[in-house]
Amino acid sequence: MAYRAGVVGGSGYAGAELLRLLAGHPEIEVVQVTADSNAGAAVGDLYPSLLPAYERLQFSPLDAADLAGLDLVFATMPHGASQALLPGLLDHVGHAIDLGADFRLPPDVYSRWYGEPHTAPEVADRFAYGLVELYRDEIASHTHVASPGCYPTAVNLACAPLLALELVEPRVIADAVSGVSGAGRGLKTTSLFSEANENVSAYGLLTHRHTAEMELVLTKVAGQPVQVLFTPHLVPTTRGILATCYARPATTGLSTARLLEHYREFYENDPCVVVVDEPSGTKATYGANVVHVTVRFDARTETVVAIAAEDNLVKGAAGQMIQAANLLVGLPETTGLPLLGIQP
Amino acid sequence: MAYRAGVVGGSGYAGAELLRLLAGHPEIEVVQVTADSNAGAAVGDLYPSLLPAYERLQFSPLDAADLAGLDLVFATMPHGASQALLPGLLDHVGHAIDLGADFRLPPDVYSRWYGEPHTAPEVADRFAYGLVELYRDEIASHTHVASPGCYPTAVNLACAPLLALELVEPRVIADAVSGVSGAGRGLKTTSLFSEANENVSAYGLLTHRHTAEMELVLTKVAGQPVQVLFTPHLVPTTRGILATCYARPATTGLSTARLLEHYREFYENDPCVVVVDEPSGTKATYGANVVHVTVRFDARTETVVAIAAEDNLVKGAAGQMIQAANLLVGLPETTGLPLLGIQP
Amino acid sequence: MAYRAGVVGGSGYAGAELLRLLAGHPEIEVVQVTADSNAGAAVGDLYPSLLPAYERLQFSPLDAADLAGLDLVFATMPHGASQALLPGLLDHVGHAIDLGADFRLPPDVYSRWYGEPHTAPEVADRFAYGLVELYRDEIASHTHVASPGCYPTAVNLACAPLLALELVEPRVIADAVSGVSGAGRGLKTTSLFSEANENVSAYGLLTHRHTAEMELVLTKVAGQPVQVLFTPHLVPTTRGILATCYARPATTGLSTARLLEHYREFYENDPCVVVVDEPSGTKATYGANVVHVTVRFDARTETVVAIAAEDNLVKGAAGQMIQAANLLVGLPETTGLPLLGIQP
Amino acid sequence: MAYRAGVVGGSGYAGAELLRLLAGHPEIEVVQVTADSNAGAAVGDLYPSLLPAYERLQFSPLDAADLAGLDLVFATMPHGASQALLPGLLDHVGHAIDLGADFRLPPDVYSRWYGEPHTAPEVADRFAYGLVELYRDEIASHTHVASPGCYPTAVNLACAPLLALELVEPRVIADAVSGVSGAGRGLKTTSLFSEANENVSAYGLLTHRHTAEMELVLTKVAGQPVQVLFTPHLVPTTRGILATCYARPATTGLSTARLLEHYREFYENDPCVVVVDEPSGTKATYGANVVHVTVRFDARTETVVAIAAEDNLVKGAAGQMIQAANLLVGLPETTGLPLLGIQP
Repeated sequence: MAYRAGVVGGSGYAGAELLRLLAGHPEIEVVQVTADSNAGAAVGDLYPSLLPAYERLQFSPLDAADLAGLDLVFATMPHGASQALLPGLLDHVGHAIDLGADFRLPPDVYSRWYGEPHTAPEVADRFAYGLVELYRDEIASHTHVASPGCYPTAVNLACAPLLALELVEPRVIADAVSGVSGAGRGLKTTSLFSEANENVSAYGLLTHRHTAEMELVLTKVAGQPVQVLFTPHLVPTTRGILATCYARPATTGLSTARLLEHYREFYENDPCVVVVDEPSGTKATYGANVVHVTVRFDARTETVVAIAAEDNLVKGAAGQMIQAANLLVGLPETTGLPLLGIQP
Repeated sequence: MAYRAGVVGGSGYAGAELLRLLAGHPEIEVVQVTADSNAGAAVGDLYPSLLPAYERLQFSPLDAADLAGLDLVFATMPHGASQALLPGLLDHVGHAIDLGADFRLPPDVYSRWYGEPHTAPEVADRFAYGLVELYRDEIASHTHVASPGCYPTAVNLACAPLLALELVEPRVIADAVSGVSGAGRGLKTTSLFSEANENVSAYGLLTHRHTAEMELVLTKVAGQPVQVLFTPHLVPTTRGILATCYARPATTGLSTARLLEHYREFYENDPCVVVVDEPSGTKATYGANVVHVTVRFDARTETVVAIAAEDNLVKGAAGQMIQAANLLVGLPETTGLPLLGIQP
Repeated sequence: MAYRAGVVGGSGYAGAELLRLLAGHPEIEVVQVTADSNAGAAVGDLYPSLLPAYERLQFSPLDAADLAGLDLVFATMPHGASQALLPGLLDHVGHAIDLGADFRLPPDVYSRWYGEPHTAPEVADRFAYGLVELYRDEIASHTHVASPGCYPTAVNLACAPLLALELVEPRVIADAVSGVSGAGRGLKTTSLFSEANENVSAYGLLTHRHTAEMELVLTKVAGQPVQVLFTPHLVPTTRGILATCYARPATTGLSTARLLEHYREFYENDPCVVVVDEPSGTKATYGANVVHVTVRFDARTETVVAIAAEDNLVKGAAGQMIQAANLLVGLPETTGLPLLGIQP
Repeated sequence: MAYRAGVVGGSGYAGAELLRLLAGHPEIEVVQVTADSNAGAAVGDLYPSLLPAYERLQFSPLDAADLAGLDLVFATMPHGASQALLPGLLDHVGHAIDLGADFRLPPDVYSRWYGEPHTAPEVADRFAYGLVELYRDEIASHTHVASPGCYPTAVNLACAPLLALELVEPRVIADAVSGVSGAGRGLKTTSLFSEANENVSAYGLLTHRHTAEMELVLTKVAGQPVQVLFTPHLVPTTRGILATCYARPATTGLSTARLLEHYREFYENDPCVVVVDEPSGTKATYGANVVHVTVRFDARTETVVAIAAEDNLVKGAAGQMIQAANLLVGLPETTGLPLLGIQP
């Protein structure tokens, strides 16, 4: 194996998914996995699914010294934790790929949406935003990556062509649903099976923090300020995000056929974006590092509808981290990443 | 029992739900249930859940002559079938409550959205639209009722106060999800467990027929033409519709608190509408004849968001039919109807 | 209302189900509901489903003094808690119906299976075991009831006729599955949606505490010691227990037809037991206070198979408590209890 | 790619899973996929998940001539169909791997359990039974393989060590649950989401055809006739089989620790069998070609309990076919097969 990797926060769902995917990666070997809350437990105790590849691996307590010298550090921790850990590590590891919100947003935007000061603004510009499809240049010129949130990945890839090509007005309504794994492995009443099963509910109305990341990315893509109203919903699936986005046309002559063409062109060099004529369900992406997108123009109400489906733990988390890591070390971006969803 | 009732199309999901609810109704007795495709089968063979109340009842073939003389006929048939059956029956039964689309829309609107001529336009005006909360007067002055579709019930009750009070512009985006029972008991690949489970997908983009019913009702409520863009999604629940609706304010000075007040006032005499501060999930309505609604004003993006949750088989179908039937015969509208959802 | 009732531990799932069912009971009124962990919260905050009946009711902290004088106290607390609360209350309330394990078993058996001393053995004989179908006489001669566990209700009703009629040997294998609500509303990793969904697992192998209750009841029914090997499994449903039980014949001349006849006779006066020819799924019992049972004799392997389905929160918990309470106060046992499952 | 393969019956669930797995196989290339009922459709229309690998592949009508000359033919058809197709093909393809029941059982046993004459008994002995772990020698000496059923794979691997080592009496109770995909993609009421969701039911009581395959294999393993009573249940998962098996000890001195040791030894050269101390849920095997097994001895009731979990579409179908195909062509048996389940 060419690269030695550590997974920080490995007992959470994104961490476990990193372990699963990296076990199939031909060039990256996991040599350490930390999990403060589960330190000492065997990986296979929490995830028997991983036994065939990690029969003897145990979760270690988090110790920055143990990570120094690794080629790749994948960090999946609650927001706030990366600011504490990573600044001291950046010069001692090959590349850090961080799934926390800490370095996704400019520090002042972070402070505003997360309601707390940013404690490491000085290293913020050492991270590229890791949405490969829209930030390839930035990633190429950085050593470290702040990997996007799950909802923003879906919404941004659904809407980017519309805004980049100035086809719609810079106001987007993003209505999305997520499976329960998006809330992580932590113990919350709303994450209980008996609460979430046979139930659909809206939450985080008007104020969900991922809104900031959508506006940041779409603003960059559009070259003008874009406003997003984002409504997330919880649905009874383990995985999967489906985002249905609405915007008003900014040009005449739109049609569904023409929009689909634009999308195919826009993403023609992006193996992880699948443009489909008919909207794919989230199941088409289950376990795979892909986003399926489609688009419609409704002449009757003069509205553009763009839809994206993804697996929140893969393209929305662990898979996307590996996709960026591949670029950081110079591998083809899909190395080791499944692109076929598991259906049914 | 005061009233003798027949259920037409009783082997489908709305029919079975009618049988369940009517078994607990103190004034209505089911004396006949028809189901062409399952004629001869015992009710308990298809729905063992119903055995304690209908141990010996069998599905009969549909024969209009058998229905003549009944006080109440509840019809749940595919669209098109009511036009054939009901015109000849209207003078021979006390009241018909029809769940088909046939008499919900003006005949010309029906023809346009359902792509087929309406064969009984002459009896259309004998039916009131059965959305009790908004059509009490019409129901009072009619003998028969065309009961609303499941999606329109949720969307219309979510948005009616906004449009009635001229708080928003007459353009609504209605983004909704439905459980799989909305597609009925018919055999369709998309209704298979293995297709629908752990999957969310959009369908019927731009053209779902329920759009017509939303525009019709909201236009009446608003007193001006209202346009609706409706996007339905399929989620892995058996029951439940959640509609999240967006509109732009038509007035200044809006706030969430003020909107909630408007809603509480608007629905203060409606026992089947529960206005909640925090959005209820669909589970809060499971098995019950209620719609839970809430509303938000987002000053940042100047958008009003209205949310409704219901059980598509109860308030979205069988329960609403009984609610209207109660009015038709002069009973309190909630007679025999559960209002508490089964949670968890 | 004839009877004033309190619900202790009302914020848990059995407590919420008591509130739902009692709201529809014609003779019992809930005047108090306690929930230490959620004291001060409105019932409708945790269970918006209950809003139409309990708009203003709040959870109180548990205080025995507040319960004194009530006609009925329904207690649903973790095992151990009833021993502390109830002894001092028994003389000050009309009837206590306790869902804890504390008074279901003889104190010494309790100590052995629950691994802790029983602190109130002196009041144990003031409780009848509340499995109405098999303990009507005991309930008639007692003032208080210890209501059975969810698994034992299913297994015992499935097997009682076999053992009472000496049709099988006194050794039973009980293989059962339960929905996740059986584990309650407490925060446990195994109860998380993402852990339980699309997953089936065995647990509590060889040592599940409900075994004691099965052996106790079946031994009484059989008039000789009965041994049970019980294997519970967790399945991704919210509600529902299905028990499949195996025993060897103790007599010749068995046939499925004859066994079904025996079952019909045995339960002919039990409105909450539905004997079915074909095995009902758990959904047939959803929300209803019924157990559906069937039985088979396999001549090839000389084995009897008995199957029971129930809703663990109704006949397996809250409904059964009300069924016993009805008897205690002299009402027909099904008063206020739905017998029709919600299907689909 | 070294081997050119055809998939017959490719539009069913086992077929789609073959396409998914073979897309990641380094030595096998799918060059043809047939599906009579969906001939002409693009693979991606039915399974958008497969688009990234099969963007242009269409389902062909079944034509034996098109298959001649292929190195490998994977057939997944309803029982009966293989007898018609395969006899004429066996000499014209490198290897046939058939998932039908037709060649799993001796023709007379097939006739008895499937209730129809076997029309190609003369080629029956050209197929080895494809349960790699127990039939390696047979596979090595045959050219074609009849791949096992999903339930028998779980039950037989759970029980084989017990019977091979004469630890238990030759009578097994096999109580198992399966996800709905086991019933295939065909349209059946019981496979509808609204019927299967939130429901568990027993079916095929006493007479399920897979019993024959369990008795055949365990009899071979035991060297004496073994009788199996098999009770399958349907649970609301898409994938997954969990089998819990019971037998009486045939020897003294058993303990759980010793049994686990026996199992570890028995399967030490089987990379697709994972022996675990604590029972894995089916989710541990999701999407992977593994069976997780564990075992217990209950001294109290003198019973051995053996438990196996698998993904019915992978180790129970498509994956196992590839595992056998690998052996037939001389590759390591796990080539191209994922062994890590997708959890959560």
